[in-house]
Amino acid sequence: MVPKKELNKDLINLIKHGGGVFHPGLSIDCVIFGFHSNQLKVLLLKFTHVEQWGLPGGFIYQKENTENAANRILKERTGLDQIFLRQFKVFGDPGRSDNSLFMKVMELENLPIKTDNWLLQRFLTIGYYALVEFSHVNPAADTISIACEWWDLHQIPSLILDHASILETALDTLRLQLNHQPIGYNLLPQKFTMPELQKLYETILDKKLDRRNFQRRMLGYDILKRLDERREGGAHKAPYLYSFDLRKYHKALDEGLEGGW
Amino acid sequence: MVPKKELNKDLINLIKHGGGVFHPGLSIDCVIFGFHSNQLKVLLLKFTHVEQWGLPGGFIYQKENTENAANRILKERTGLDQIFLRQFKVFGDPGRSDNSLFMKVMELENLPIKTDNWLLQRFLTIGYYALVEFSHVNPAADTISIACEWWDLHQIPSLILDHASILETALDTLRLQLNHQPIGYNLLPQKFTMPELQKLYETILDKKLDRRNFQRRMLGYDILKRLDERREGGAHKAPYLYSFDLRKYHKALDEGLEGGW
Repeated sequence: MVPKKELNKDLINLIKHGGGVFHPGLSIDCVIFGFHSNQLKVLLLKFTHVEQWGLPGGFIYQKENTENAANRILKERTGLDQIFLRQFKVFGDPGRSDNSLFMKVMELENLPIKTDNWLLQRFLTIGYYALVEFSHVNPAADTISIACEWWDLHQIPSLILDHASILETALDTLRLQLNHQPIGYNLLPQKFTMPELQKLYETILDKKLDRRNFQRRMLGYDILKRLDERREGGAHKAPYLYSFDLRKYHKALDEGLEGGW
Repeated sequence: MVPKKELNKDLINLIKHGGGVFHPGLSIDCVIFGFHSNQLKVLLLKFTHVEQWGLPGGFIYQKENTENAANRILKERTGLDQIFLRQFKVFGDPGRSDNSLFMKVMELENLPIKTDNWLLQRFLTIGYYALVEFSHVNPAADTISIACEWWDLHQIPSLILDHASILETALDTLRLQLNHQPIGYNLLPQKFTMPELQKLYETILDKKLDRRNFQRRMLGYDILKRLDERREGGAHKAPYLYSFDLRKYHKALDEGLEGGW
């Protein structure tokens, strides 16, 4: 736990000197979805002084690649790196910038409110999303927040700015992505059953899928290896275990799943 | 044809005063694909002084929505509006900004080269793509270019900055999009045959498709109406004519094609 005093020093430093360090007028917001035992959650921060929840985000250093900036932010909030992080949209409505949030922070930190401060300008934001195994994650608050927690997608609190719309767009994109890209590696155990894989899809899509169609389609993608082992111990006939054929899985990540045009 | 003198006045104005008018450090580049009689082309500009080709682009006014900015740029270059324009990626590598291009322009316009000029800073760019019927388009050069022409995708000249990579990413995205979104409205005549629709897909994908698979899959999308008319006059059996069911077509644009998860 970082002592409050030091935390506010970082915050004041960001407000006063960030303008010379970061690319102007552009931020990054990360929608970090977490999957664990058939639950889908999203990681949210509670912002200092503002006392409202929002997406973890940050800024791009003047000589930093945007992808590196997004990975840095993800790592700072979750401790994870080498995560599949996907840029999905720039949010550029001029009405989305609301400088009353940072004005409130400046006021409560006893800083002068200068209208030419870099944080009080119009910001566009680049949305990224990631899907991680949430039991592997240690959520950590940042310079401008006092809490970082997983929230159930069905019970999201009111979010700052246009973050509710960013979250919704990320979820739509993730669901659409299931039609042309593989998913599951790093989210399921190394060996898994077809019903376990189906549960992952059903949890993300928030709907039931037909068992036989699911199996036929999934095998048609040609990214699975059926092992010579079965999952013993259940009430039903012991189901086969599968693992991903990682060479084919990564090829499908690059080139799209089989069955496309 | 705009007289050369006036064109350079606009260019000088952009260099000198654009910094107070546009959002800093962020541009838009448009990959405008054109389809006509089974050819796929892309619209390129030849830049003033630089004498090199690149994508049509522009900047975002300080209070302008990014989508509106992209549509404005598309309209200025093609005369078309209400075109399906899709944001596909932000290009944010710090190495992509090369201010030697604008320095050359400043030098040849006898302007002082000030390193704090807004155009000499790092720029990220938002890529948009559109697909239009190119016989409907009147290509028009802009303030910073001397020519605007359609180029065959197989014969693209060397392009400025990272524009070759932006173009390639747009084409990959367009091809992937065919797996979950309908295409063809505004590109084909109102009534068309299945072979004509297949030719559109084959031209975009740059490969042959199996006739029977194509027909089965396309009918499975449930966006076509088969008409009680046939295309007469060919050597083969007269093929049926189809048109898009526009209600279902637009629903599929919003929600994805049938057959997804």
